[in-house]
Amino acid sequence: MKALVLEEKGKLALREFELPATLGPRDVRIKTHTVGICGSDVHYYTHGKIGHFVVNEPMVLGHEASGTVVACGDAVTDLKPGDRVCMEPGIPDPDSRASKLGIYNVDPAVRFWATPPVHGCLTPEVIHPAAFTYKLPDNVSFAEGAMVEPFAIGMQAALRAKIQPGDIAVVTGAGPIGMMVALAALAGGCARVIVADLAQPKLDIIGAYDGIETVNIRDESLTDAVAAATDGWGADLVFECSGAAPAILGMHEFARPGGAIVLVGMPVDPVPVDIVGLQARELRLETVFRYANVYDRAIALIASGKVDLKPLISASLPFEDSIAGFDRAVEARDSDVKLQIVMPQ
Amino acid sequence: MKALVLEEKGKLALREFELPATLGPRDVRIKTHTVGICGSDVHYYTHGKIGHFVVNEPMVLGHEASGTVVACGDAVTDLKPGDRVCMEPGIPDPDSRASKLGIYNVDPAVRFWATPPVHGCLTPEVIHPAAFTYKLPDNVSFAEGAMVEPFAIGMQAALRAKIQPGDIAVVTGAGPIGMMVALAALAGGCARVIVADLAQPKLDIIGAYDGIETVNIRDESLTDAVAAATDGWGADLVFECSGAAPAILGMHEFARPGGAIVLVGMPVDPVPVDIVGLQARELRLETVFRYANVYDRAIALIASGKVDLKPLISASLPFEDSIAGFDRAVEARDSDVKLQIVMPQ
Amino acid sequence: MKALVLEEKGKLALREFELPATLGPRDVRIKTHTVGICGSDVHYYTHGKIGHFVVNEPMVLGHEASGTVVACGDAVTDLKPGDRVCMEPGIPDPDSRASKLGIYNVDPAVRFWATPPVHGCLTPEVIHPAAFTYKLPDNVSFAEGAMVEPFAIGMQAALRAKIQPGDIAVVTGAGPIGMMVALAALAGGCARVIVADLAQPKLDIIGAYDGIETVNIRDESLTDAVAAATDGWGADLVFECSGAAPAILGMHEFARPGGAIVLVGMPVDPVPVDIVGLQARELRLETVFRYANVYDRAIALIASGKVDLKPLISASLPFEDSIAGFDRAVEARDSDVKLQIVMPQ
Amino acid sequence: MKALVLEEKGKLALREFELPATLGPRDVRIKTHTVGICGSDVHYYTHGKIGHFVVNEPMVLGHEASGTVVACGDAVTDLKPGDRVCMEPGIPDPDSRASKLGIYNVDPAVRFWATPPVHGCLTPEVIHPAAFTYKLPDNVSFAEGAMVEPFAIGMQAALRAKIQPGDIAVVTGAGPIGMMVALAALAGGCARVIVADLAQPKLDIIGAYDGIETVNIRDESLTDAVAAATDGWGADLVFECSGAAPAILGMHEFARPGGAIVLVGMPVDPVPVDIVGLQARELRLETVFRYANVYDRAIALIASGKVDLKPLISASLPFEDSIAGFDRAVEARDSDVKLQIVMPQ
Repeated sequence: MKALVLEEKGKLALREFELPATLGPRDVRIKTHTVGICGSDVHYYTHGKIGHFVVNEPMVLGHEASGTVVACGDAVTDLKPGDRVCMEPGIPDPDSRASKLGIYNVDPAVRFWATPPVHGCLTPEVIHPAAFTYKLPDNVSFAEGAMVEPFAIGMQAALRAKIQPGDIAVVTGAGPIGMMVALAALAGGCARVIVADLAQPKLDIIGAYDGIETVNIRDESLTDAVAAATDGWGADLVFECSGAAPAILGMHEFARPGGAIVLVGMPVDPVPVDIVGLQARELRLETVFRYANVYDRAIALIASGKVDLKPLISASLPFEDSIAGFDRAVEARDSDVKLQIVMPQ
Repeated sequence: MKALVLEEKGKLALREFELPATLGPRDVRIKTHTVGICGSDVHYYTHGKIGHFVVNEPMVLGHEASGTVVACGDAVTDLKPGDRVCMEPGIPDPDSRASKLGIYNVDPAVRFWATPPVHGCLTPEVIHPAAFTYKLPDNVSFAEGAMVEPFAIGMQAALRAKIQPGDIAVVTGAGPIGMMVALAALAGGCARVIVADLAQPKLDIIGAYDGIETVNIRDESLTDAVAAATDGWGADLVFECSGAAPAILGMHEFARPGGAIVLVGMPVDPVPVDIVGLQARELRLETVFRYANVYDRAIALIASGKVDLKPLISASLPFEDSIAGFDRAVEARDSDVKLQIVMPQ
Repeated sequence: MKALVLEEKGKLALREFELPATLGPRDVRIKTHTVGICGSDVHYYTHGKIGHFVVNEPMVLGHEASGTVVACGDAVTDLKPGDRVCMEPGIPDPDSRASKLGIYNVDPAVRFWATPPVHGCLTPEVIHPAAFTYKLPDNVSFAEGAMVEPFAIGMQAALRAKIQPGDIAVVTGAGPIGMMVALAALAGGCARVIVADLAQPKLDIIGAYDGIETVNIRDESLTDAVAAATDGWGADLVFECSGAAPAILGMHEFARPGGAIVLVGMPVDPVPVDIVGLQARELRLETVFRYANVYDRAIALIASGKVDLKPLISASLPFEDSIAGFDRAVEARDSDVKLQIVMPQ
Repeated sequence: MKALVLEEKGKLALREFELPATLGPRDVRIKTHTVGICGSDVHYYTHGKIGHFVVNEPMVLGHEASGTVVACGDAVTDLKPGDRVCMEPGIPDPDSRASKLGIYNVDPAVRFWATPPVHGCLTPEVIHPAAFTYKLPDNVSFAEGAMVEPFAIGMQAALRAKIQPGDIAVVTGAGPIGMMVALAALAGGCARVIVADLAQPKLDIIGAYDGIETVNIRDESLTDAVAAATDGWGADLVFECSGAAPAILGMHEFARPGGAIVLVGMPVDPVPVDIVGLQARELRLETVFRYANVYDRAIALIASGKVDLKPLISASLPFEDSIAGFDRAVEARDSDVKLQIVMPQ
């Protein structure tokens, strides 16, 4: 089968590639339909590594996927051929201590698509455990199905935040993940979500949603904007999605006494944190690492219409144009949120 | 000043009534604008008591109120004359153990409007602590402001539930409180809310909201409906708002393993509970008693447009027709959710 | 191999019995050492069923066990022959929705030792998944290892309670489970635990522990005792371990406003609950079903010396006297807490 | 009355000082008995300020106090002259948003003893709100009563940690606060507490408690010690009490996946934090600021014998030797944990 292969740093090929093909008793075989391009895919392309994950051998990219079940292992009972599905790309060891606790995302043994040495799914057919394959309701498209993965990160942030109905939230950073977080926070119970960034085109995209306000920090102080929105009390929740050192250093200023900050953005190196500033308001901080147990919730919110991800799909490209798609993603246009690749059906 | 006075069980009078008039340093004087009629007001009218609270002396009714500040005590800094406000009707002892813990609603010393021997607010002017008086944003009407109190009960239920974004909820009982709970649960993060009742007119009113599904349990099994909606897994949350013994006996059947039930409905006498049924799914149960720290959240959700309470206001009557309003409330028409009384301005 | 077999209601046999013998790659083979007799074992013996679990075929009893690993499957890395261990008797489907959430105890597919049609471990050798087999520290004896299972229920109750350091707790019912709950609550952070029962010999046993107070409700009012111990405020936590209808009906009276009740006792039929009484203090209720993710915690508390279960082991009997042991357990002497059977080594 | 007055940075005087003397209706007048010397008292003495709190006028020091009620305001019902008590030194505005939420410690309006411009209690008599004055049980001495304040910080850390029974905890930093945290964590439900520091005399003091292990990080790697104690899994909880930059940078290494870190130590300036390291284990971080609602819990644990603070009282000095006491505290001997001043009775 053909696959989009990262041969090495900077070099992509759309070529035949042999992937393991044994269907285990609890697995399903899926004809892939749509695969989103993630920032991590692009980073492996441009840098050949992320942290200590290094691409030493050719690796198939892609982990944001939807498709159709074409075959089921003998022990699979919840899925059948023809089911439209999306796939959770990280497979833990079900016997691990983390998995038993329900936090399988932090199982050190997890195998995650398109994370070396594990291949991704930018290929016409994949085998996946049924337990990590989720049916799409009729009113959720394949395109939306392939958005579940990035939205799942927003959901994980919203879950860790322990939103209380009517909370007011601030999101610093309006990249694709910041947008997902903002939408998850709003659907997840916040009354208002204030998104801050420097890039106006991004703010325009997310600000078009009802209930989301934007602050361009080139033009106005976020501290002042939050104070104005909260009578000087501060936001209940701050989602730090920029990974930028200045945002992290000042993040306590946006939070109310007893509020919480969720650290979503990933600064490459250690950054200065004002611990006394956090303590003075006795803030709780949460961190997120991928997600666990959120796919069903994410799908439910999309299906019910509470979350509409379609405006964030900037373009769909055919599989044969995958490399062009990645090159467009490398450009990082402010007006692009999500590019998707559609497989030949 | 004139007031709507419950002279004794079954006997209302709209007459001159002397209420305490001293404005303390932390109080505000408020010209009342709209006052909703609550089921408890009606119950005092028809029964002369609720539990061990007995109307032994003439008592002014009403506790769901909005109005305009006309004077402020010397120490009041957050409010000023002219502010449009709504009022939280229960005033705790701020030094009590419960208040110090932030659960002032369960302070045994709380004084609550229109709960004997404390007078209510169906009168043109009231004095109230500034700390329990909340500004209304410009886009929230007096009518909506007087809905904050009943909605606050829904908010309290939603808070106690610890909703996780994307939860699926069941509400048993579509009375006014069940409706408030359903709307709070939906705005508070649920993906879907299924409301069950026997009375179709009530289901029609609440079912008109996006995201709310209804089940008339005369026609179909709620257990089956929940199973169908959740692939047999059960609802994450069940809000028991009927107070009806059969609903309470079977409530565990609607919940998923590890889910939660919030007991909102108040059965007069002890009722049978299937404890082993609750244990078999290891359910958490929460109870609610009025509310604490929810007014600001409730107002934020109304102001942001996430919750629209206007369709639940069935009729507005002038103060001089108050007694007719109460008599209409006694009829308990299925098509009436909330009746409000508007004071002369 | 020989096993203690419940042939049918009322009829035990110590006889040869063929148990499945295939060692899977993630399993270990364990030479059993000590097996405690549980009330459920006794109940199957005397009644032939518990709820809808009916003994239709001969079944090996026993599920509270310790032993020594004698062989390991190929994929087992954390255990090796010679390791002294105890075994968690319920094996879930690791792919189930409940297991993925970390609440594998409520997985409907769980297979639990000595619960029809699953055989127990009162036999010299068993095969068990390594993931549910836990190493015993050197200072924890086999006898204590076989106490981990019943203590795990106490731990589950203590976890669900969400104890806050310094809480004051009440335990109603001083049976073996009530005792386990009391010790787990005390080690788990409570400052004081008040245990109430009618049977003085049981109270004498548990009251011998430092930090545990007892109330014989034949002699004094528990409500009064709790009020005296808490300046009239009520206990932070109530663990209902009696399953008795009167205790359940009055349980809210022991709890402080905003406190919690953990329902551990299992009344056979639905029992009346005073829901308005629970609501008036806005109590949280938790239920427990077996346990999940507590074995390591239980062992840590025993090993550190914070919990001493040895005084609760009333007698140890050799395997050949198993039937006599069960008959003694049927007698239900107030002075017996736990009887254990020791296998020939 | 005489008082220990900090005239200005570096200059103490034991002299007559006029303190406000009006007994409000909800206040009590207390004859002080024992007052501990806190690091913050010493810091004001040596530096004349802490952060933006600057000693611009002579200020009475001391905020860790016990004593005897000698008079009560008219509205005081829970206390009477002769009651032995200890006092919570921070008085919030009961009407503030933070106070209503139960987090009165983060009320910006809180007035805290010996924090400019508020005077402390190193004087024979003080007036204090009854709501923040706590009765001492007969078996709790005045010396222990004056230890409740520093222990309350340990309790706040233990509460924020959300200890689960049987947790394994690491405490980095064995200063007086680290010791308090270690004892609160152990009494609060941890199975084991590992305390790390560079100063052996401090480790010897805290290591003398059952259940507390120590690691001198001059001699061994804490990471290795934690791995050994937890089979490589990591500690459930890390209490960072050193405020030292290297400890903070590496703190995630001690925690298990899904664990938590409580930031108790207060580094003066922002320090580098490895956010990606925290995220990789999806750690939760909590911060503490003084305490709220813990005095009763702290007293209960001391009275029950679960926490013994007496070994931490290094010396008691008479009031007339207060200045010598402060000078000894400035020396910061490793063998001194807490110095106390005893008032003439």
